[in-house]
Amino acid sequence: MRIDKNTIYFDNPVSIYSTSSIVGPIESKSKYRNYFDERVDDDMFGEKSYEKAECKFQIRAIQQLLNNAGLYIDNIDLSISGDLINQIAVSSFATRSLNLPFIGVYNACASLGEALFLGASLIDSGNYNNITCTTSSHFASAERQYRFPLELGNQKTPTSQWTVTGAGSILLSTMNNKTKIKGATLGTITDYGVIDVNNMGAAMAPAVYTTLLKHFEETGRDADYYDCIITGDLGKFGSSLLKQLLSKDNIQLSNHFDCGAMIYGDNKKAIQGGSGAGCCSVMFGGYFYKLLQKKQINKVLFMPTGALLSKDTSLQGETIPSISHAIIIENDEE
Amino acid sequence: MRIDKNTIYFDNPVSIYSTSSIVGPIESKSKYRNYFDERVDDDMFGEKSYEKAECKFQIRAIQQLLNNAGLYIDNIDLSISGDLINQIAVSSFATRSLNLPFIGVYNACASLGEALFLGASLIDSGNYNNITCTTSSHFASAERQYRFPLELGNQKTPTSQWTVTGAGSILLSTMNNKTKIKGATLGTITDYGVIDVNNMGAAMAPAVYTTLLKHFEETGRDADYYDCIITGDLGKFGSSLLKQLLSKDNIQLSNHFDCGAMIYGDNKKAIQGGSGAGCCSVMFGGYFYKLLQKKQINKVLFMPTGALLSKDTSLQGETIPSISHAIIIENDEE
Repeated sequence: MRIDKNTIYFDNPVSIYSTSSIVGPIESKSKYRNYFDERVDDDMFGEKSYEKAECKFQIRAIQQLLNNAGLYIDNIDLSISGDLINQIAVSSFATRSLNLPFIGVYNACASLGEALFLGASLIDSGNYNNITCTTSSHFASAERQYRFPLELGNQKTPTSQWTVTGAGSILLSTMNNKTKIKGATLGTITDYGVIDVNNMGAAMAPAVYTTLLKHFEETGRDADYYDCIITGDLGKFGSSLLKQLLSKDNIQLSNHFDCGAMIYGDNKKAIQGGSGAGCCSVMFGGYFYKLLQKKQINKVLFMPTGALLSKDTSLQGETIPSISHAIIIENDEE
Repeated sequence: MRIDKNTIYFDNPVSIYSTSSIVGPIESKSKYRNYFDERVDDDMFGEKSYEKAECKFQIRAIQQLLNNAGLYIDNIDLSISGDLINQIAVSSFATRSLNLPFIGVYNACASLGEALFLGASLIDSGNYNNITCTTSSHFASAERQYRFPLELGNQKTPTSQWTVTGAGSILLSTMNNKTKIKGATLGTITDYGVIDVNNMGAAMAPAVYTTLLKHFEETGRDADYYDCIITGDLGKFGSSLLKQLLSKDNIQLSNHFDCGAMIYGDNKKAIQGGSGAGCCSVMFGGYFYKLLQKKQINKVLFMPTGALLSKDTSLQGETIPSISHAIIIENDEE
């Protein structure tokens, strides 16, 4: 039922029936390591290119998802997936082998939010029973596409982040599970004029800020309604900017968690923390979903964050637009 | 209501309330020229780069759509758009100025099919009233990204096509209009092992073939049910391959139209015809929709076609996967 411009609620139950997460070598040293389904020691994953390796991460994430859910590929109606690689080639090639109807999405690192919104809408429509929502990223494929070849050995700047190598998949289903997607507030593109491509946190914090204010306004809720407000990959610096922006509206987030700021802990190599479309998918699928299932948390606003730049737009002097969709995830009350 | 794996029907009416089309200089010489809303003489559109020009094409297509529909931007709930440029940057930057919730899609030149499926599903769900579905392409931005800089003056090969410079937008709405989206058969990724990046028609014809057979099987319809079966951008060579594939199943398409084969007519410069995500959006929005509105045709199966390669996947020796979604468009019976 539509209530206003950006927020919708789903009339029919949309369960998050299962999740999966698979990560690379550096992520395998994370303090959340034991939450991930699979940890891969070799960032090439036995493949000949970083892109093919990332593709394998996605395939394994979906296979693991099926294992976790006790389903076969034939039980899946539709695959919605996205990644950061040009023409989302990783998602296309991963889905190629699965013989599933394919919906490719791109909202950069907010693609998982977009996928969950679309998947939940399609389940809600009554036309689909089981939909996989999958996103991935890979440190090395992202570095060479967006920045420089690793072989150059470039230094990272103080506000930069470390792209997560990994893939996570989420199964949306009509099959009952206490953890459900109840609604969503869609983001609009926000651009505060940031031009530093090594400061994604600054580019994306305003998108979270905008969507969050809209969410509170349209739902009548405040931050305390949720046990956790989880952002995708603002990183530590971006998270502090979000708090500054919100403080102007006298909003304090005591329950804010950022997947990017969390995943690498105090690992100095990651500077401000993790990023990439795989960051929030492995952290939500691996960690937060398990807290929800154990009822250690019950109400979550999940806000993947995406910077909608390309290498060309930056070279052509454009600022960095960003977007964040907020997904309302709650356990059924008993 | 779900009937089977790939085909769904919409329970609620989803009108195609309006369309728009805007094309570049070469397309302005097309025999369909008078069907397009706007013809632009300058392929730079007064901008400093091809990418910015393509962005302006998208913005103008949506503005023209609003004009044609008699609506304001505030009446639009959601923008679903896609293009071929890395990170679909054209769509992101075009939508940035519109302040609309944004869903970025990528299925290459099949993105319009994906957008129409998603838009119609969201209208059908009852949560949205007016959704724009927009795709674009630009000859020069596509050439330099996928192939070579224009300045090199490379010759085109005999099976190559010419990327359409243009953008088209389609307004899906709960407002009544006789032309409606009744359902869709989603495509799965098909790969017959084609590796020639200058032969998109050969890569994509099998995707149409696969989706079409599935559509006939699942709906119980045959080709004659439709007045027109419209494919996106197979081109002349790809269209002949499609007929060969279908002839093995004793299916003859007497009502097949390919937007790519049509748009440039006998213009030798275009070799096998048009291509690009803007090809089917300007031809459907500009031409076929008007035939539907005049009831010269009443039942259409619209099948945008996409080749899911990237420059990197080809350089890494991959074959070219492709996809085609079939959208069922019919006029209400009187």
